[in-house]
Amino acid sequence: MTSEKQIKVGIVGGTGYTGVELLRMLSQHANAKLTMITSRKEAGTRLDAMFPSLRGRCDLAFSDTATADLTKCDVVFYATPHGVAMADAPKLVAAGVKIIDLAADFRFRDHTMFERVYKMPHSCPELNKEAAYGLVELNREAIKNARVVGNPGCYPTTMQIGFQPLIESGVVDTGHLIADCASGVSGAGKKAEVDYLFTEAGDSMKAYNVNGHRHQFETAARLQEMTGEKVGLIFAPHLVPMIRGMHSTLYARLNAKGLAMTNDQLQTLFVDAYKGEQFIDVMPFGSYPETRFSRGSNVLRLALHRPQDGDTLMVLAVQDNLVKGAAGAAVQCMNVMFGVPESEGLSAIALSP
Amino acid sequence: MTSEKQIKVGIVGGTGYTGVELLRMLSQHANAKLTMITSRKEAGTRLDAMFPSLRGRCDLAFSDTATADLTKCDVVFYATPHGVAMADAPKLVAAGVKIIDLAADFRFRDHTMFERVYKMPHSCPELNKEAAYGLVELNREAIKNARVVGNPGCYPTTMQIGFQPLIESGVVDTGHLIADCASGVSGAGKKAEVDYLFTEAGDSMKAYNVNGHRHQFETAARLQEMTGEKVGLIFAPHLVPMIRGMHSTLYARLNAKGLAMTNDQLQTLFVDAYKGEQFIDVMPFGSYPETRFSRGSNVLRLALHRPQDGDTLMVLAVQDNLVKGAAGAAVQCMNVMFGVPESEGLSAIALSP
Amino acid sequence: MTSEKQIKVGIVGGTGYTGVELLRMLSQHANAKLTMITSRKEAGTRLDAMFPSLRGRCDLAFSDTATADLTKCDVVFYATPHGVAMADAPKLVAAGVKIIDLAADFRFRDHTMFERVYKMPHSCPELNKEAAYGLVELNREAIKNARVVGNPGCYPTTMQIGFQPLIESGVVDTGHLIADCASGVSGAGKKAEVDYLFTEAGDSMKAYNVNGHRHQFETAARLQEMTGEKVGLIFAPHLVPMIRGMHSTLYARLNAKGLAMTNDQLQTLFVDAYKGEQFIDVMPFGSYPETRFSRGSNVLRLALHRPQDGDTLMVLAVQDNLVKGAAGAAVQCMNVMFGVPESEGLSAIALSP
Amino acid sequence: MTSEKQIKVGIVGGTGYTGVELLRMLSQHANAKLTMITSRKEAGTRLDAMFPSLRGRCDLAFSDTATADLTKCDVVFYATPHGVAMADAPKLVAAGVKIIDLAADFRFRDHTMFERVYKMPHSCPELNKEAAYGLVELNREAIKNARVVGNPGCYPTTMQIGFQPLIESGVVDTGHLIADCASGVSGAGKKAEVDYLFTEAGDSMKAYNVNGHRHQFETAARLQEMTGEKVGLIFAPHLVPMIRGMHSTLYARLNAKGLAMTNDQLQTLFVDAYKGEQFIDVMPFGSYPETRFSRGSNVLRLALHRPQDGDTLMVLAVQDNLVKGAAGAAVQCMNVMFGVPESEGLSAIALSP
Repeated sequence: MTSEKQIKVGIVGGTGYTGVELLRMLSQHANAKLTMITSRKEAGTRLDAMFPSLRGRCDLAFSDTATADLTKCDVVFYATPHGVAMADAPKLVAAGVKIIDLAADFRFRDHTMFERVYKMPHSCPELNKEAAYGLVELNREAIKNARVVGNPGCYPTTMQIGFQPLIESGVVDTGHLIADCASGVSGAGKKAEVDYLFTEAGDSMKAYNVNGHRHQFETAARLQEMTGEKVGLIFAPHLVPMIRGMHSTLYARLNAKGLAMTNDQLQTLFVDAYKGEQFIDVMPFGSYPETRFSRGSNVLRLALHRPQDGDTLMVLAVQDNLVKGAAGAAVQCMNVMFGVPESEGLSAIALSP
Repeated sequence: MTSEKQIKVGIVGGTGYTGVELLRMLSQHANAKLTMITSRKEAGTRLDAMFPSLRGRCDLAFSDTATADLTKCDVVFYATPHGVAMADAPKLVAAGVKIIDLAADFRFRDHTMFERVYKMPHSCPELNKEAAYGLVELNREAIKNARVVGNPGCYPTTMQIGFQPLIESGVVDTGHLIADCASGVSGAGKKAEVDYLFTEAGDSMKAYNVNGHRHQFETAARLQEMTGEKVGLIFAPHLVPMIRGMHSTLYARLNAKGLAMTNDQLQTLFVDAYKGEQFIDVMPFGSYPETRFSRGSNVLRLALHRPQDGDTLMVLAVQDNLVKGAAGAAVQCMNVMFGVPESEGLSAIALSP
Repeated sequence: MTSEKQIKVGIVGGTGYTGVELLRMLSQHANAKLTMITSRKEAGTRLDAMFPSLRGRCDLAFSDTATADLTKCDVVFYATPHGVAMADAPKLVAAGVKIIDLAADFRFRDHTMFERVYKMPHSCPELNKEAAYGLVELNREAIKNARVVGNPGCYPTTMQIGFQPLIESGVVDTGHLIADCASGVSGAGKKAEVDYLFTEAGDSMKAYNVNGHRHQFETAARLQEMTGEKVGLIFAPHLVPMIRGMHSTLYARLNAKGLAMTNDQLQTLFVDAYKGEQFIDVMPFGSYPETRFSRGSNVLRLALHRPQDGDTLMVLAVQDNLVKGAAGAAVQCMNVMFGVPESEGLSAIALSP
Repeated sequence: MTSEKQIKVGIVGGTGYTGVELLRMLSQHANAKLTMITSRKEAGTRLDAMFPSLRGRCDLAFSDTATADLTKCDVVFYATPHGVAMADAPKLVAAGVKIIDLAADFRFRDHTMFERVYKMPHSCPELNKEAAYGLVELNREAIKNARVVGNPGCYPTTMQIGFQPLIESGVVDTGHLIADCASGVSGAGKKAEVDYLFTEAGDSMKAYNVNGHRHQFETAARLQEMTGEKVGLIFAPHLVPMIRGMHSTLYARLNAKGLAMTNDQLQTLFVDAYKGEQFIDVMPFGSYPETRFSRGSNVLRLALHRPQDGDTLMVLAVQDNLVKGAAGAAVQCMNVMFGVPESEGLSAIALSP
């Protein structure tokens, strides 16, 4: 895999699941060269010792975060907890390095909302102002020229992709949207917590944080910003016993304009909205997307339903939470930012069964 | 386990999952004696050959459905496909045998609705008229004296238990209820179908039948009947990779009366509605019931949430779909019909982990 | 569940999986009354807050380990890390309290072997001398009169039950036994460790500790002690993605005496060895026991195979690692020690599916 | 992905799991062009309707097996039941088409053994004589020039790769090899059978066919043929609740020559045997390969252990049963047969988590 253009890539904090996914995709990327990966705790550890799936494919070791010179990179991905990217950003941006943060530091146009939701001060509100929200299908132009990208949360991607065409077209009651969503356990990251043990999360299901999950704020803010409509959103996340995969069942009440439309016309709203998008699969009206058909791939699949041909429209959307919901979306942003083919490194077909 | 009162029990069609669950519970029942179990295909097969979990605990073999004399029983459970119980019912009832059907034959007060939904003629509409719907907590008195009981569908139990107190109290918009539900794979029964293979249903999630699942009709009809309110219900079932377990997330919009109530008052509606019910666990407001804490037990657990203290009330309800959602509920009905302690045979604590 | 004889039971350290299993079984026990349960960290916490499966069934809270007076109990179960029971034992035994340790403190007749294997000094070697090894089927008489019982490790139970009749009868080469075993993840306990996350242990399998697992020493020592034969044992444990369940595949080379026997005669060795044992299910020769048919039950199931009628005999044995492999075996010991029916509290049928 | 050399590929019977895996790999293959895929039952069905993971990536529909002209292909893969490939082979080979059979038709050099084991007559014993066994690492030269390749069974690949260096070097007792193996459920194929339902195969483990699995004959025959040694092999397969993945734990008794070797020397046998093999990962002595680190990749990973430094050597080997154990191995054969880079289409990194 050689090519003229070689983007020098750095990764900060690549010991978790989004980290290993970045490595998996970048190692298949014709225009990217992983130059440096840092970790506070794992400096010196070979990547393939931590991730045996990389044995034979990657000779790098983790560099020490404290001493690694990231300014040698063209772009740095932050696969870190909230707050790390914004601490580094000003210096790197000044050095001409682009930043893609997979955490929340640059997801809110209004940094005070970030502060309220994440309960930490924002250290570079100026840079935040120019940051682009990294959902390529809804924000491609801004990302092209961005120096800093805030990658979306996993749930918000499904909610925005699903609700946006409806709100944009003015066919639903925007004050009462419901998103009933479910995530595989990898959404919780690679943390040693009892709740996510095989014995606790296996063969069971529960809701969590239905009142005030941070992705609710992110999604509502983005939908309002993009459409100019005031958005009321109930977001009910659930934990289900899958390793990967996210399933969102979205409900919107059709308004008078929506009720005047046929199901075909509603379907057309989505077909048109995502025409030419290789990573959004608008399935036929009435289909049932399954999370397994996105496993390991960057494709989000969705389908519309209208139960009993009544006044409620449903959007079913699935994605791999670690790919289109995280690392894949980030690589897609990089591709857009550096003008290489948008699908480079992202062509893996879902692993099914 | 001996007792004065010994109910002679028959089971028709006990080769599936509800069948083996009936056997598990009845074998621990102080007042029941399994007298006969029939199967068309498995006549002569020992039960413990089909269900090795019963080895050492049950010496019965399946009798031939065609020749078995069920009139020797006091009660017969039908763990059969739809249509079987109603074919046998008139003769057995005439012989003084009570019937508990785990299929849909006697779930609809209006037999023409059964015919529309299940697409088969009802063979004994007269008997259907007197049949009791077998959801004890909402219909105990009728069940006590019933000769025929139609056991609820698994999903409808969670939806009725969750919505009933709200509708009864007149605090929600009954025209726009949403039930976003998920079931473990055992809900599909023990059928050799590709869709339910480990390789297909594992590590994945999908919605199905969001437009016209038969449990939608059952639930809406029951809620209307019990409350006298016209009910509009969207029911979106999902399949999740669990063996057992059902999780229902219910959404109802509070009306003016409801909006005037505090969360404590809303909680009190449920506490009062299910006071003294040992199989309904009303958890503290804001709790998260998990399906695993009902695994193998007859307890349905629920909790209320009100996101952002807005106008939508949520009810989270979990149960074991094979127990409270099927066989356990049926045994509970039997206990009520025969005047033995309601919890007899149903005292198993959930198996967790 | 009342009865004349009421054993006053204490549990030390009941916050893990063996703890909640003890609670599940004791709550169904006609002759036991849970009097006290202690925890260092969770003093004051209600049991049903930690284990919602117990909601409505148990009103106790954890007592403080430091201040709880365990001498009020007739028997105390230790569901604690290795080393805790032996620290308390002398005082409690002096006060007439019996002790059943689910950890390893009293598993080795030779306390110096305990010290080598578990790398800690034994604090009461005298008491250890009189302690009984708690595998009822192989040691019932000693347990009857014991003041202290060391409950077996989960794997050793399957290995001893499977190998003992062969060694006892002198039909196999005792120097080259192989036990290829697999456990569900609950065998690792309720510890917050990355290795046992759903995302790490799910959909995967690995061997571990094939060279020097502590259960190898326990098993070899016990087999030697019981049979007087020198035992060479390879023990290869594996982790498989099950919540519960243990599957052991045992290999033994038949010696001249064994080769002179028919398969029926070999089968008879096991049938005779476990005649009358309600918790050992000797299945027909050539059967395949499955772990799910022991889920939640105290029954160990086993079957013999002799591939290609050659010189190697195989024993397949399954059990629920948390029940017959831990808490169930402990309750069984208590029943034997206190002269109540051996199956009391242990009659649950396996939960399947 | 374009290239000068374009192999025209046909697939017969691609509706199962090996079929979709072939499609996944070939769609990423720079030198292969899928020309035709046939199915008796699914003629006319689009591939992406059957396998939604292919939506947007494949426009083909299944051709009718009866009418499809496979002679237009350079190579045809048979992902069919045993017996199909040998029926077509003579005609296709005569037309210059190469054949890679993923079933057993061409796995046995001695066709009478095929007939005994698979209980069907071999329809082209002449062609069978020249067929090459498709385990590239052990048979590369023969495959290069083969017109017909019989792809190995999934289990036999792990057993041969694991035992071959030991037998070849004459360091073990070849008369008493033991292979204790476990497979994920996809090994059973995409068949509608109750045994493989999520509810039956989930959260459980069992052995099966320990006496006479067909892969035992295949493996023993191959090992004897390659090494000239008489091989006695016990093969005990198990079913574990994984979608994909195979774990083999191999036991061999060291003979005098073996006992004279250090562990380092034993390790060197494997390092040397697989030097330069990109799809065999010889891990450091004492490692624990996990199946998840092969998920979706063509790499088989193995590690040696010697418990208690005794006389038994263990080899732990893992692979993805559908990739290195089936479709990936087949593509690897194709690459060798057509002189394209051996890793083409096979570079996917394991999907983990």
